[in-house]
Amino acid sequence: PVATLSFQSPFEKQIDSILSLMTLEEKLGQLNLPSSGDITTGQAKSSNVAKMIEEGKVGGLFNIKTAEKIQEVQKIAVEKSRLGIPLLFGMDVIHGYKTTFPIPLGLSSSWDMEMIQQTARVAAQEASADGINWTFSPMVDISRDPRWGRVSEGNGEDPYLGSQIAAAMVKGYQGDDLTLENTILSCVKHFALYGAIEAGRDYNTVDMSRIRMFNEYFPPYKAAVDAGTRSAMASFNEVDGIPATGNRWLLTDLLRDKWGFDGFVVTDYTGIPEMIAHGMGDLQTVSALALKAGVDMDMVGEGFLGTLEKSLEEGKVSIDEIDLAVKRILQAKYELGLFKDPYKYCNVERAATEVYTQENRDFARKVGAESTVLLKNAGQVLPLKKEGTIALVGPLADNAVNMAGTWSVSTDQEKSIPFLEGLKEVAGDKAEIMYARGSNLSYDKEFETNATMFGKTIPRDGRTDKEMLDEAITVAKKADVIVAAIGESAEMSGESSSRTHIRIPQAQEDLLDAMLATGKPVVLVLFTGRPLVLVEEEAKVPAILNVWFPGSEAGLSIADVLFGDVNPSGKLTATFPRTEGQIPLFYNHKNTGRPLSNKEGNFEKFRSNYLDERIEPLYPFGYGLSYTTFEYSNFQISNTTLPMNGSITVSVDVKNTGDYDGKEVVQLYTRDLVGTVTRPVKELKGFQKVMIKKGTTKTVTFTLTAEDLKFYNYNLDFVAEPGEFEVFVGTNSDTEMKKSFTLK
Amino acid sequence: PVATLSFQSPFEKQIDSILSLMTLEEKLGQLNLPSSGDITTGQAKSSNVAKMIEEGKVGGLFNIKTAEKIQEVQKIAVEKSRLGIPLLFGMDVIHGYKTTFPIPLGLSSSWDMEMIQQTARVAAQEASADGINWTFSPMVDISRDPRWGRVSEGNGEDPYLGSQIAAAMVKGYQGDDLTLENTILSCVKHFALYGAIEAGRDYNTVDMSRIRMFNEYFPPYKAAVDAGTRSAMASFNEVDGIPATGNRWLLTDLLRDKWGFDGFVVTDYTGIPEMIAHGMGDLQTVSALALKAGVDMDMVGEGFLGTLEKSLEEGKVSIDEIDLAVKRILQAKYELGLFKDPYKYCNVERAATEVYTQENRDFARKVGAESTVLLKNAGQVLPLKKEGTIALVGPLADNAVNMAGTWSVSTDQEKSIPFLEGLKEVAGDKAEIMYARGSNLSYDKEFETNATMFGKTIPRDGRTDKEMLDEAITVAKKADVIVAAIGESAEMSGESSSRTHIRIPQAQEDLLDAMLATGKPVVLVLFTGRPLVLVEEEAKVPAILNVWFPGSEAGLSIADVLFGDVNPSGKLTATFPRTEGQIPLFYNHKNTGRPLSNKEGNFEKFRSNYLDERIEPLYPFGYGLSYTTFEYSNFQISNTTLPMNGSITVSVDVKNTGDYDGKEVVQLYTRDLVGTVTRPVKELKGFQKVMIKKGTTKTVTFTLTAEDLKFYNYNLDFVAEPGEFEVFVGTNSDTEMKKSFTLK
Repeated sequence: PVATLSFQSPFEKQIDSILSLMTLEEKLGQLNLPSSGDITTGQAKSSNVAKMIEEGKVGGLFNIKTAEKIQEVQKIAVEKSRLGIPLLFGMDVIHGYKTTFPIPLGLSSSWDMEMIQQTARVAAQEASADGINWTFSPMVDISRDPRWGRVSEGNGEDPYLGSQIAAAMVKGYQGDDLTLENTILSCVKHFALYGAIEAGRDYNTVDMSRIRMFNEYFPPYKAAVDAGTRSAMASFNEVDGIPATGNRWLLTDLLRDKWGFDGFVVTDYTGIPEMIAHGMGDLQTVSALALKAGVDMDMVGEGFLGTLEKSLEEGKVSIDEIDLAVKRILQAKYELGLFKDPYKYCNVERAATEVYTQENRDFARKVGAESTVLLKNAGQVLPLKKEGTIALVGPLADNAVNMAGTWSVSTDQEKSIPFLEGLKEVAGDKAEIMYARGSNLSYDKEFETNATMFGKTIPRDGRTDKEMLDEAITVAKKADVIVAAIGESAEMSGESSSRTHIRIPQAQEDLLDAMLATGKPVVLVLFTGRPLVLVEEEAKVPAILNVWFPGSEAGLSIADVLFGDVNPSGKLTATFPRTEGQIPLFYNHKNTGRPLSNKEGNFEKFRSNYLDERIEPLYPFGYGLSYTTFEYSNFQISNTTLPMNGSITVSVDVKNTGDYDGKEVVQLYTRDLVGTVTRPVKELKGFQKVMIKKGTTKTVTFTLTAEDLKFYNYNLDFVAEPGEFEVFVGTNSDTEMKKSFTLK
Repeated sequence: PVATLSFQSPFEKQIDSILSLMTLEEKLGQLNLPSSGDITTGQAKSSNVAKMIEEGKVGGLFNIKTAEKIQEVQKIAVEKSRLGIPLLFGMDVIHGYKTTFPIPLGLSSSWDMEMIQQTARVAAQEASADGINWTFSPMVDISRDPRWGRVSEGNGEDPYLGSQIAAAMVKGYQGDDLTLENTILSCVKHFALYGAIEAGRDYNTVDMSRIRMFNEYFPPYKAAVDAGTRSAMASFNEVDGIPATGNRWLLTDLLRDKWGFDGFVVTDYTGIPEMIAHGMGDLQTVSALALKAGVDMDMVGEGFLGTLEKSLEEGKVSIDEIDLAVKRILQAKYELGLFKDPYKYCNVERAATEVYTQENRDFARKVGAESTVLLKNAGQVLPLKKEGTIALVGPLADNAVNMAGTWSVSTDQEKSIPFLEGLKEVAGDKAEIMYARGSNLSYDKEFETNATMFGKTIPRDGRTDKEMLDEAITVAKKADVIVAAIGESAEMSGESSSRTHIRIPQAQEDLLDAMLATGKPVVLVLFTGRPLVLVEEEAKVPAILNVWFPGSEAGLSIADVLFGDVNPSGKLTATFPRTEGQIPLFYNHKNTGRPLSNKEGNFEKFRSNYLDERIEPLYPFGYGLSYTTFEYSNFQISNTTLPMNGSITVSVDVKNTGDYDGKEVVQLYTRDLVGTVTRPVKELKGFQKVMIKKGTTKTVTFTLTAEDLKFYNYNLDFVAEPGEFEVFVGTNSDTEMKKSFTLK
């Protein structure tokens, strides 16, 4: 049975009247989303896709930008196609548009929801000024597998934090009114569970229980739906043995019927024909499967356009099913106001004053700094003083194109501020910055080629490894402090960049060792798109600042933090394991029946541990240092009984006991001690990022209600179960500062 | 609602009449299975457990052996307890009793079902002669995670092969008639899914979809049930968020109602109280949960004995539920004939002539040899000639106690034949065997302590590492060929021996390198309880013979193979990965939507692969070499159409093209090209182990029916779907020799 589309809006009649005018071919055209191909301004008319648009065979286009070009293409749809239905114009606006913010994993480390929402707002402002009305974002896939390259594109491992961020991103893109010229459609992706791929190998099989889906992986998608996302993207992976793109339980029973989503569903790139390789049938079969499952728009696959007519004739799909999908696409165009003004995003004046503005770039600089995570700072090597001589080394030190990180297709990556440039600018004439490259990205040239695609090259130095290293040593010996800019290139993470070894490449490790051997203080400025194994670095390097890929203003963002103009306050949103063999490792795991009884990492026979490694991570979820120190005290709970319809407050005093003003992300976790199903040992249920001036104390207060303690039980009902709970507060997920209460 | 126990046997009335005589305490006693503790012969009467037996508080005992001791204890039950109900006597008879066969993972590599069944038969014979009437075997947990130490105890990764082995083991233990004195109860374990623990860390959480459970993990348990196992053990892990021990869906709805199991269910060691740590409630709650789920016997936990009376009073369990469990225990005792003769396993004469006999030991020697897997044999280094000088080095070369491998509690491990001793014996006076230890197990003394528990020590040598190494080099230089006996100690795998790094310890790796540096031919005789990462060894060592842990006759088994008296024919039942970061890696995976298009391991962007590693394993499932070579030809299929009620035959000629007679395991795989759910790229559906004399050819024929092509669909119905299939034959799972057919 086909679900009925319940339009809450007054344009239902108008949609019905358009639908009644449409031929089957025009209907299927609305469901078709080709990539724009090689359209260049002024040539749209002669392109292949233009011909298809004229024939009514295109519902939207993606990978096309600038108001001029989009106006030209929209004109073809409006003026040349029989019914003049305007197009959607989509793009992967993932972490900023031209002004680029840190990669999502980095941005999530800020734990600053207002700021995150504002990055989406700025991205929508810029993208819409360039003609785009639909972004394939936010990506909200929970992942516990740092081998998977796309952890860089997500918000880490936590369903609660991930849900907050998902909602913030949707609100940022869509604003309160989609008919405005600077708000665009968001598209939550990848629905669903893509982050749980087996062995961390991109596009691989996903498998988990329903109860895990609901409690651990679905919440951020649901949060995006609740926040009003108007579109959703089906994921590549299978769910319960059926690819998401053809999975009716997922796309209809759950997404629409249970969660009430009434926007439209688009496939991922060639999602429909890829079901052939999944073993679901030929193109006609999988296209019908997708439509019947609840897919409305076919990205690139042309399965709908090419086969649904035949399937309709053969009774394999119904016209009602096709009409429903068409209605949903038309509805989105209505909601955007495109029927009122197809050119509302084609104001060719806007880009000059709204894209890549100094204001936006200043914001990006700030966001880049707010997203850094200080992993270690022994002997307070950081912040650096703006004096003396600083040696900057490493293959990532003087490179623009890698600074924006992966999946930043609209950025002008050549214009990103290299670390070296930013460091010099912020140091001004107060400190001398010396530079030596020191090493290539990797000793392995082929690996490097594969890891620096899409113009994100780190040209290999013509010198030998030894020559580069010797130069770096010479430079380092003249300096007061050494800053090593090493780690991953931008494309070592991201899509189709899965790694079995998640370590710093040996060439750079050797450079780091050479720098340490000089005896000078060394600061490791780590570029990475994923959690890495850093056990050796933690042991030998005095200071580690994880900057991820900070965005278009990278060099300035990093320099602001290094010199203490910004005190780092980021907290990890994904666990950093001690070794690849611990994967998956995450803070909100279940207890076992035989938990280890010691926290010192001593092996215990017949307890849940490893013979050869501790069970803890190197850096836990929520971890991150500051240049100052915070002391937690006076932990209070208002009542040890929480009534089902009441609330309790939890408060804690946080004192800045160091020498710098600083922000702290105060985290609240709960543990449900007994359940009808097993429950995690800790779950994040609240956080507040507060600025605390040095020497002062702030009282941070949280309110807890039964709603916060709900989970999906064995029957997948969302319930809070009476009983004993623990509540923890602290500076990261490792906190043992706890109190007990009873839910009655 | 409580399921009713439908006794097919005439003793129902008798059980009912006993039940009617029992007090509640006596009933709960039948459900109680304590460990025997420290009973020594002649002291049974004064032990604590004897007092409990007298009081009717014990249904069975485990970890007690010898007919004398068991007779003494049984006498207490029969003569001193009020009702005189005899006890069950259980033990972990896992891979042999005193005569010990290879660890199960090794034994499974023989692919010889008759032989495997015979090992269980011999084990039952020996155990029953020693008074034991119940073994906690077979362990049939499918696992794809070599980090998990207990892969050593299982039969690898394949549900089809695992099912064959499960059935063979049950038949071996139980025979055709349980009332005989030499047949014992088998106990299939661990029900269910224990092999899928997260991160390979023992006792950790398990999570998977129902469809995966049914198709990929359940088949061996079901095969054991179908083969008639009279008991089953609940696993430690949770299933769908509820620990197996308290999971009614698992233990009743599935196991009894769907599969028709009518034996009894016992917990694993302290399985009930461990549910407290899982967060399911206090001891009373979890005990009631276990009973209501379908647990009949409480191993060690004493939750039943201690709390069910209270739960009954409080209406939390019913007397019918208790009675049902009691009936199942009594039924098992009846089936064993214990009510007829409680002392049927207490013939004190038997052990002398039936345990550890020369016949059994000869059989173990043969089984040990048949289970070895030849991984590499460049330049035909093997077999060794019985001439010249052979240097044997390595910490495992002259050690008895490790030879039987993990979980061999009844073996007299001091008596196992060390490799050196066996090699000398088999070489006789024809070749000179020189020995040098060469290294310790590991440089890490603490690791070594944890890896050599339960008396399986490899005493550290008093000399320095360099002294040991130098001696080995000196010895090696005098030899014609070097045999390096290295790898894992027995307790580096097994329960609670999970490893994040699955490699040969560095101390031994250094020894191996030193041996290779001599320029002499080197044979690596690998001891291991799990798949290891052997990429470097494969690259540098000419010959690798994986002997696992061969059992009590280890040295002779290995020597027989090394000298070619037995031509190795084992095939891996678990994939050997190239690196830990590929885990889980298994042959019968699903296809992705973006499969890699090359088999050379070249990286392809936007395909399912890794930036830094190939996606293939080092050694695939089914892999194993022989001293001879086999050539496959004349692959025939009798019809390209398989009717739903018909069959087709598939045949292939296998020619022995080498210089030795040899056995080949001819393997048959199918692929279901299109399904209503995604299907594996290959599935083992048949195999035949055939002896082929050199220069001769054998035609191997398989019959395929629709039954072979059945799987559990989205609704968990077991169906064969019409459509296109491929059938493969070959020497391992990598084979590309295929034909197509259609199921109609």
